Amino acid sequence: MYQFETSVRLHDTDSAGLLFFANQFKMAHDCYESFLSDNGLSFLTIIVERDYLLPIVHAEADYAEALEVGQELVVELSAGRIGNSSFTLNYRFTSDDDEVGSVSTVHVCVDAETGEKRDLPDELVEILEEL
Amino acid sequence: MYQFETSVRLHDTDSAGLLFFANQFKMAHDCYESFLSDNGLSFLTIIVERDYLLPIVHAEADYAEALEVGQELVVELSAGRIGNSSFTLNYRFTSDDDEVGSVSTVHVCVDAETGEKRDLPDELVEILEEL
Amino acid sequence: MYQFETSVRLHDTDSAGLLFFANQFKMAHDCYESFLSDNGLSFLTIIVERDYLLPIVHAEADYAEALEVGQELVVELSAGRIGNSSFTLNYRFTSDDDEVGSVSTVHVCVDAETGEKRDLPDELVEILEEL
Amino acid sequence: MYQFETSVRLHDTDSAGLLFFANQFKMAHDCYESFLSDNGLSFLTIIVERDYLLPIVHAEADYAEALEVGQELVVELSAGRIGNSSFTLNYRFTSDDDEVGSVSTVHVCVDAETGEKRDLPDELVEILEEL
Repeated sequence: MYQFETSVRLHDTDSAGLLFFANQFKMAHDCYESFLSDNGLSFLTIIVERDYLLPIVHAEADYAEALEVGQELVVELSAGRIGNSSFTLNYRFTSDDDEVGSVSTVHVCVDAETGEKRDLPDELVEILEEL
Repeated sequence: MYQFETSVRLHDTDSAGLLFFANQFKMAHDCYESFLSDNGLSFLTIIVERDYLLPIVHAEADYAEALEVGQELVVELSAGRIGNSSFTLNYRFTSDDDEVGSVSTVHVCVDAETGEKRDLPDELVEILEEL
Repeated sequence: MYQFETSVRLHDTDSAGLLFFANQFKMAHDCYESFLSDNGLSFLTIIVERDYLLPIVHAEADYAEALEVGQELVVELSAGRIGNSSFTLNYRFTSDDDEVGSVSTVHVCVDAETGEKRDLPDELVEILEEL
Repeated sequence: MYQFETSVRLHDTDSAGLLFFANQFKMAHDCYESFLSDNGLSFLTIIVERDYLLPIVHAEADYAEALEVGQELVVELSAGRIGNSSFTLNYRFTSDDDEVGSVSTVHVCVDAETGEKRDLPDELVEILEEL
């Protein structure tokens, strides 16, 4: 499990006064980037140096509580199913220890040139298995 | 069914060269706002004049094709289940008649002051039932 | 002069109830992309096929009126100074014929590989001079 | 002077491979929110409890270096002119001690109900004068 701290910024909210729903996905991805980077595998490295990409093929979110500007959040990232060429990440959002929402993303590994599905690289599987 | 035309803007993409996944949810919501407005019920009216709000409690998306900057999209909006106090909207994204992705959002109707669940207002049910 | 129609989307606003200031820059860039595309030079072409990029080195905006969700806007794009290796674009935002804001961006032409400043390509100068 | 640490997230970049220019303004505003909050004046308090708002009437930015996903940034916030009803904030962005960009924003104080210009509240002037 990986923990990431963030907060709701003004530009994450909308004129209904609360978090705009799509921005919960952005915060989940911020957590994912931070997790990879803390484990020595930055997004820049993947994009520039590696021959694979990890596009998201499915994403979903639940919203249990309305979130306001300035609210401090903890995102807990854990791994779901890790397959040969795909993996699932689960994000649990809490504020003051209350669960306020969740996100789940399914990633597939593809060749960066051809876009063809391929096996997950070892360097990634190692990181995911320790989640 | 309601049709909405949009395109992938540069700020919708990321440095992996393709649409950032959370922005497909933004485009779906653009379509929803346009649909409501075309049916005489603008978001500003709901936020400022009405006593209800329609927060999203669940959202999910599938991504069938990678989308590039400038790509023209058609979003087809249809209604899923319409309950007493909640409803589901389904969005199908196509580009050159190929399905490239989909989004689904579940909205619940709440009292704007108390946040308590309440019945969908008639003005909204009428619009949704014609979708 | 090039005209572009847009509107303020919910995700462009924030919980103060109005357009989040940075999103006026996004709308200006939407207009710029549309202008280039309408003149046969898409962003995708520039990024994928050309050997130059046009990064923004300076941007500024004025905000004359607070803008609300759903508000319809017309953006008028005109060219400012066109130099050897840089150019300025001016955007005037109106709503119901009232000026509500403006944006100005300064772009410099650089080699896509080295990042070194270079002359504007003819294909771009031709388009800019007709603005 | 107030220091704020942030980093370039994937959704801050675009398919040209670098920070999308408008997102430098977002990062500046993140710093501003953090500064106010650290000084006991949260945005939520201003929006919900106070009778004033602080809309931005002018914003500008310079971009000295192209910024990539994952790049760590320090934002240094200092106050410019503090007038009776307006104030200017200056943001200097550095990465590894190199200046990579700057932002400046001019805010005017208005009555939250009428939108009329009014004097800056003492609680804000005190915070700004210590910057």
